Amino acid sequence: MPGYNEDDWLAINTIRCLAPDMVNKANIGHPGAPMSLAAVSHVLFNKFMQFNPENPSWPNRDRFVLSNGHACALQYCLLHMFGYKLSMDDLKQFRQVDSITPGHPEKLDTPGIEVTTGPLGQGFGNAVGLAIAQKHSAAVYNKDGFELFNNHTYCIFGDGCAMEGVASEAASLAGHLQLGNLICIYDDNHISIDGDTAIAFTEDVLKRFEAYGWHTQWVEKGDDDLDAMEAAIQRAKDVTDKPSVIKLTTIIGFGSLKQGTHDVHGSPLKPDDLAQVKKKFGFNPEEFFVVPQKVYDNYGARSKAGAAVEQEWNKLFSSYGEKFSKEHSEIQRVLKKDLPEGWQKCLPTYKPSDPATATRKLSEAVLEAIHDAVPELLSGSADLTGSNNTRWKKATDFQPPSTGLGDWSGRYLRYGVREHGMGAIMNGLAAYGTVIPAAGTFLNFVSYAAGALRLSCLSHERVIWIATHDSIGLGEDGPTHQPIETLAHFRALPNIMVWRPADGNETSAAYYMAFTSKSTPSVLALTRQNLVHLENSVLEKAIKGGYVLHEDKEAQITIIATGSEVSIAVESVKTLKDQGIVARVVSMPCVEVFDAQDKDYRLSVLPDGIPILSFEAMSTLGWEKYSHEQFGLNRFGASGPYKKVYEKFEFTPEGVAKRAKATVDFWKDVKPIRSPINRAFTHVI
Amino acid sequence: MPGYNEDDWLAINTIRCLAPDMVNKANIGHPGAPMSLAAVSHVLFNKFMQFNPENPSWPNRDRFVLSNGHACALQYCLLHMFGYKLSMDDLKQFRQVDSITPGHPEKLDTPGIEVTTGPLGQGFGNAVGLAIAQKHSAAVYNKDGFELFNNHTYCIFGDGCAMEGVASEAASLAGHLQLGNLICIYDDNHISIDGDTAIAFTEDVLKRFEAYGWHTQWVEKGDDDLDAMEAAIQRAKDVTDKPSVIKLTTIIGFGSLKQGTHDVHGSPLKPDDLAQVKKKFGFNPEEFFVVPQKVYDNYGARSKAGAAVEQEWNKLFSSYGEKFSKEHSEIQRVLKKDLPEGWQKCLPTYKPSDPATATRKLSEAVLEAIHDAVPELLSGSADLTGSNNTRWKKATDFQPPSTGLGDWSGRYLRYGVREHGMGAIMNGLAAYGTVIPAAGTFLNFVSYAAGALRLSCLSHERVIWIATHDSIGLGEDGPTHQPIETLAHFRALPNIMVWRPADGNETSAAYYMAFTSKSTPSVLALTRQNLVHLENSVLEKAIKGGYVLHEDKEAQITIIATGSEVSIAVESVKTLKDQGIVARVVSMPCVEVFDAQDKDYRLSVLPDGIPILSFEAMSTLGWEKYSHEQFGLNRFGASGPYKKVYEKFEFTPEGVAKRAKATVDFWKDVKPIRSPINRAFTHVI
Repeated sequence: MPGYNEDDWLAINTIRCLAPDMVNKANIGHPGAPMSLAAVSHVLFNKFMQFNPENPSWPNRDRFVLSNGHACALQYCLLHMFGYKLSMDDLKQFRQVDSITPGHPEKLDTPGIEVTTGPLGQGFGNAVGLAIAQKHSAAVYNKDGFELFNNHTYCIFGDGCAMEGVASEAASLAGHLQLGNLICIYDDNHISIDGDTAIAFTEDVLKRFEAYGWHTQWVEKGDDDLDAMEAAIQRAKDVTDKPSVIKLTTIIGFGSLKQGTHDVHGSPLKPDDLAQVKKKFGFNPEEFFVVPQKVYDNYGARSKAGAAVEQEWNKLFSSYGEKFSKEHSEIQRVLKKDLPEGWQKCLPTYKPSDPATATRKLSEAVLEAIHDAVPELLSGSADLTGSNNTRWKKATDFQPPSTGLGDWSGRYLRYGVREHGMGAIMNGLAAYGTVIPAAGTFLNFVSYAAGALRLSCLSHERVIWIATHDSIGLGEDGPTHQPIETLAHFRALPNIMVWRPADGNETSAAYYMAFTSKSTPSVLALTRQNLVHLENSVLEKAIKGGYVLHEDKEAQITIIATGSEVSIAVESVKTLKDQGIVARVVSMPCVEVFDAQDKDYRLSVLPDGIPILSFEAMSTLGWEKYSHEQFGLNRFGASGPYKKVYEKFEFTPEGVAKRAKATVDFWKDVKPIRSPINRAFTHVI
Repeated sequence: MPGYNEDDWLAINTIRCLAPDMVNKANIGHPGAPMSLAAVSHVLFNKFMQFNPENPSWPNRDRFVLSNGHACALQYCLLHMFGYKLSMDDLKQFRQVDSITPGHPEKLDTPGIEVTTGPLGQGFGNAVGLAIAQKHSAAVYNKDGFELFNNHTYCIFGDGCAMEGVASEAASLAGHLQLGNLICIYDDNHISIDGDTAIAFTEDVLKRFEAYGWHTQWVEKGDDDLDAMEAAIQRAKDVTDKPSVIKLTTIIGFGSLKQGTHDVHGSPLKPDDLAQVKKKFGFNPEEFFVVPQKVYDNYGARSKAGAAVEQEWNKLFSSYGEKFSKEHSEIQRVLKKDLPEGWQKCLPTYKPSDPATATRKLSEAVLEAIHDAVPELLSGSADLTGSNNTRWKKATDFQPPSTGLGDWSGRYLRYGVREHGMGAIMNGLAAYGTVIPAAGTFLNFVSYAAGALRLSCLSHERVIWIATHDSIGLGEDGPTHQPIETLAHFRALPNIMVWRPADGNETSAAYYMAFTSKSTPSVLALTRQNLVHLENSVLEKAIKGGYVLHEDKEAQITIIATGSEVSIAVESVKTLKDQGIVARVVSMPCVEVFDAQDKDYRLSVLPDGIPILSFEAMSTLGWEKYSHEQFGLNRFGASGPYKKVYEKFEFTPEGVAKRAKATVDFWKDVKPIRSPINRAFTHVI
C-alpha cells in the first residue's frame, strides 16, 4: 500500500481552510463536517474515484453522493479543486441567490453533483438507487470483454441520515440485494444539532448494518489515518457480494478550537478560530480562499487520468458498437432520455364498448404492452404487486442471482414495504441515466414518501409512481387507506404531473406523458374499482390534461371531473336533462398539463358565461382554481363496499345533479360569469 | 408456570374460526394473521393484560396496539369475547358502512381500540409513545405506596411494520430510552403481500433490535407453544431497563389448507377451506359466528378480575387524593383534557412598539411562559432544539436516569432526526391521556411525517407541531429546505389547524387554540426571520382564524396575507395609496378556524363588492377559496439571504402593490363582485 506524503496533507488541509472560508464569507453554513471529512474525501477522490471533470456525465463514472448535504462546502471545494466548472468566484458566492453553490447540493445547479441532497437520509437512498442501476445496466449491456458499466457508488452519510427511516429502509433493501458496488462511509462524529448523539442516538450502527447484511468496518482515526481509510475502502471494493459501510470516527470541525462540539456544526467559525485553523494547517491566516498551485496540479493530474480512463471507455464503447450495434444505439438513446421510435404505438386504445375495467388493470395492460418496446423501464412495487398490477406476466425479478429468485437484468424490483426508501431509490435510479423507474403503492402511501417525491420534482427526475386504490373507491380498507388530502398535496408541488385517468385511453395518455416528459415526475392515481370506457375519450385529447368530453352549445353549466368521477358526471347529464338543465362535461386527468396549454384552448374547455362545478371524491382544495363551485370530500372516508361509500357521500349522478342545479341557480344573477381561466396577472420568475 | 388446558385451546380455536367468519361474511379482509396470532393474543389477554371492558378508559389499563392493523378481525374478536361493547352483530357488520368494525382499527369507532392503525409502522410508533407517556406519568405522579401508573404497553407488529422506516426510527429511540415497559411481539410469519419475505426482507430483525438496545427473544412455535409464549412475555416484563421484542414464528392462516402462503393474507378463505378449518378445530362447519359459552365465561371471568383490579386502583386513587390533593385533581383535570383555570393569562401579549422578533422565538416565549401552568405539556424536537426554540430554559430532558442526562419526569424529549417516528410517537403520547405532546422540526420536514400527521387528524389527537423555518424566508438553506406545497397539503387534511401567525399576539393565539382544541392536531408554521408586531393584532381577533387588520371603508381591494407576509401587505397599503388605490388588509393565520366562524363574520372580513388578493410566499393552491387573485410561489425557492430571496420573487410592498393594482384593474368591469365566501351549496355529511 502506498504511503501518504505532504502533498496529500496539503490537499486535505487546503479543504480544511477553504470550506470554512466559504461558510465565513456567506456568514452561514456548516464548516464542521467538511473539515473532518476532508481526509477521507481526499483518499476517496484522489485514490479511488474515476471521473472526468470535463465530462461530468460520462456514463461509467463513479458516483459520489453526499447524503449529509449540509456539508456541501466540502463537495464544492473538491469539485473546484479537481477542475469541474466551478470557479473560485463560485465558491465565494456560496449560499447566494442565483449562484451555482446553493446551501445544499442541487443536481441541476452544479456540474458534478449527481443528486440533490440535504433532506437527511435521501442521499443514502439515492446511492442505493444508483448502485442498483449500475448492477442492472451491467447485466443488460456488458458483454465478454466489454465491461461498459462497472462503476462504484460512494456515499458519505452522517448521524442524521443514520437516524432517518428512509435510509434504514434503503439500507435493508441494499443488504437484501447484495449490492457489492455500494460503499458508504458513515461519518461517526458523535455530534448532531442538539449536541452529543448520546442524547438520542445510542444504537450500535455497525451492528444494525450487519443485521441488514452489509459488510462493516471501523476506521478509528478518521481525521488522521489515511492508510487505514484507503485499506478500508479497498477492502470494501474487494467485497463484491455485500454493500459496505465504513464507520469513520471523526472529530467534527477538526482543527477548530471548538472541534468535537456542535458549535462547529452549523455556524461560521469565529475569526480568531479560523485564523488559528489556518496557522495550524500551515496557511496564512490573513489570506482567504487559497488553493496552492501544487494542489491544483496534483488534483489536475488525477482528473487528467480520469479523462484518459474515459477516453479508453469511449474507445471500448465504439468497438462495442461495432459488435453490438443494437445495444450500442439503445444505450445512446437511453442516455439522451429519448424513447424508441414508435413505442407509443404499443399503447392500448379502447372503445366505449370494451368491458369496464379498473384503471390499475388498464395500467397493467400498458406495462404489458410496452415493456418490450421500452427496455429501460424498471417496474416494481412496495409489496403490493398483486394490487398495484405493476408486473408484466413474463417479468424477471431484479434479484441477486444467488437467491434463485431472479437476476441482475431483471426489470421488476421488490421494494418491500418501504415507500419512502422506494422514492429515494427511484430518484437514484433515474439519476443514473439508463433506467426509467416506475413503482407502485396505494396512493395514500405515496405520502409516506413525500420527502423523496418533492426531490424528484426539484431535481427533475423522470420517476413514475403507480398509485392505485386512489380514493374512497378502495372501499373496505377504510379511512386509514383512503386518500383525501393527497392530490391537493401533490398538485401543489412544482414540476409534477398528477394524473387521474378516467378510463383506458386516458390511462394510455397518462403513460404517454409520463414517459415523454423527460424531466418531470408523475403520479398516476388509479382506481381499484372498474370504470367504463368513455365516449369521446381519446389519447390525443387526454394528453392536453383536460378536454371536453361531452359538449353542448346550449349548456348552462360545465362539470369538471377526474378519474372515477368522470363517468358519474356523464351520467348526471341525463339526470340534469330531466330537470331541464343542460350540462357539458370536462374530463381533467391532469391539471398541470392542462395549465401548460395556451389560454385559448383552456378557455375553450372552461369557457366564460356559464358556471363551472368540479367533482372529485376527495378534498376540494385547489379546485377553486378551475371552477366556481366544488363537490368533493372534506372529511375522512368510510369503510365499506365502495358503492355504498359513494352513496353515503352522494357521489352519484343524482348527487352531482343536485349540486349542479344549486350551482346554476346560484350563479343565475351574476353577469357576466367569468371563467377562472382569466386571471388579473401571472407571476413568472 | 401453570400449564394450559383445553379451555385455552377452545378460546384460541374460537378466534381461529370466528375471525375468518368475519372476513368471509364481508367477503374481503385478512384472515391469515388473526388465525396465526390467536394463540399469542390469548396468552397476552388472558394471562397478562389488565383491563376492564366496562371502562375502556381506565387510566392504568395495559395498552394493546395491533400495529399490523389489517389483522383487526382478531382484535374485534377479542374485544367482543372479553365483553367490550362490541356485539356479535357488530362482528357481522365487519367492514360495512357505519359499523363499529371498520377495515382497520379506528380509535374513535370502537371501544377498546387505543390507537388508529393500519398504515404500517404507525402502531409501533404509537406504542413507543404510549410507553413513554406511562414512564413519564409514573415519574410525575406515583408516590411511595401509590403506584398509580404502572401499566405495560403491548404491541404486535408484522413484517410490513418491521420494514417501515417509521417503526425503525421509533425502535431506535425506544432502545435509547430504555423503555422497559414496552413489549413488542413480532409476528414472524415470513409472508407479506408479495409472497415469501425472502424476496425483499432477509435482514436479521432480532439482531437489528439488539443493535437498538432492545432485549430480544425468539419463540419458535408461535402457533402451539403457549408455555414458551408465556415464559417469553414474563421474561420481557422482568427486564425493566430495555424494551423487549419477541420474535414469534407463526404460520400465517394457521389451520387453513393455504396456511403459510400469501393466499391467506388478504382474501377470504374458500368455503370448503373454512369448513375444514372448523372441523380441524372442533367446530361445526355448518355454523358461523360461534363463541362457546365456556369461552365467554372464562374470558368474562378474566374481565371481571380486571374490573376488580380497576376497583382497587380507584380506591388507591381516592386515598392518593387524600394525601396528594393537588396531584389528584391535576390528574383528573388532565384526563378530561381540560386546562388549568386561568392558564391563558400566562400567554404573552405584545404592543407594536415591541422589538421585531421571529415567530419561532415568540413560540419559545409562549413555552417559557406557560410551561409551569400547563404541566402536561411535553415538548421536544427532532434534533433542532436550538433552531425550533422548543425548550424552555429550565427544562429537564426526558431520559433514562442512568444516562445522567435527565430523568423520567423530564418534559423535553430528544427525538433525534426522526420526524416520522416523532409523529407516530406523539400520537401515542396523546392517546395515553396525560400528556399534550408538542415537538419541533422545520416545516418542510413535517412532510416526512405526513403518514403520522394524517392519523393525528383522523384519530383526533391533540398533537402540536412546532414547524419553524416556514418558508423561503429560511434563506440560505435553499430549495431543499423551503416549503412550497406544504401548507396546501396540510390545509387539505380534515380536522387540522394550520397556524401561520404574523406576530407575537397571533403566536399566542395559535397556542391558545392548539391547547384548547381537545381533539384537533395543530401545525404552527413559524418564521426563522424577525417580524414586527402589528397594529391591531390581538389574541381575541386572531383566534377567529382571520380578521381585519387594517380597515378602510373606501377600500377598492382586500389583501389577505399570512405570517411573514402580513407586514409586507400592510406596507403595500401605503405604496398603493401613492398610486391612488385604497386597500384593506386581512390577516388569516388559520383558514380552518376562519372557516368555522359564522357566515356573517366571514363576510365582514371578506366582503362582497371588491376583489380580494391573497398573498403567501408559497404555493397559491387553495387560496382561490378565499380570494379572486393569488400572489405566491408556484416554483421551488432559492438559496440566499432571505431578504434577497424575497426580492427575487418580488415579495415586497411594491411587488404586492403591483399585483393589487392589476387585480383592481382586472375586476373593474365585473359587477357585482361576489365574495368567495358565498357558495352555491355546502356539502355536510
